[in-house]
Amino acid sequence: MPGSGWVTDRPPSVFARTPEPPYYAVIFSSILRGDDPAYQRMARRMEEWVVRQPGFLGFETARSPGELGITVSFWDSLEAIALWKAESEHQIAQRRGREHWYAGYVIRVARVEQVRGFSPGNESGPAGGTPMRRDPPGGR
Amino acid sequence: MPGSGWVTDRPPSVFARTPEPPYYAVIFSSILRGDDPAYQRMARRMEEWVVRQPGFLGFETARSPGELGITVSFWDSLEAIALWKAESEHQIAQRRGREHWYAGYVIRVARVEQVRGFSPGNESGPAGGTPMRRDPPGGR
Repeated sequence: MPGSGWVTDRPPSVFARTPEPPYYAVIFSSILRGDDPAYQRMARRMEEWVVRQPGFLGFETARSPGELGITVSFWDSLEAIALWKAESEHQIAQRRGREHWYAGYVIRVARVEQVRGFSPGNESGPAGGTPMRRDPPGGR
Repeated sequence: MPGSGWVTDRPPSVFARTPEPPYYAVIFSSILRGDDPAYQRMARRMEEWVVRQPGFLGFETARSPGELGITVSFWDSLEAIALWKAESEHQIAQRRGREHWYAGYVIRVARVEQVRGFSPGNESGPAGGTPMRRDPPGGR
């Protein structure tokens, strides 16, 4: 998304540079059984792998230590999400996750319809300190 | 959601007990400027407040220390989301957040269309260790 750097000034890689909606989000909420270095290696490998998937738009991730983790990945279509779910390396990671790493998870697939954002660096712009809006033209 | 306790065994309150889709998710990704106790107090107050809002279904939250936080709240309609956004206590919290606490945030509103989950306690069920599916009847 060249030119859309409205929330990415600090740090640049934390917020996904997603296009105008609509697009799709996979909200993956998980609890780990423990702190396994093998899980960290798998997670890094999947991060390297997913960026090469067709239709992948970006991801954002957070984990409260010892508690819930939420990773949201963004996709241009449900077909792209289905292909990534079926990808063979990812299938292996999913199975290992269920067998070894996760105490539980929930995956929700959702269609992103509205986006708005804020960063202090944009306060001098036309929005004057209020959040910038990127609702779709037909959105509410 | 009585009877749907398929991912909530450990711990019970971490995953939101959302109904069958469709419903709506507000994905709030944020970076804090620093570690302000006043922010923690506001966040707790908003958590107490939001559960009383009409149409609120639950929320899940995670924050990597010093990095990204992701809170996903779930709602039964876009109207309920708009009412919560406009609620007066919440309006004050939003303004203080922009003025004092957030280095940046992105809010995405999305329609949840598919849900699946896993917890080891369900492996003995009919799904035999594979993830339980809760796709809507008409879903893919």
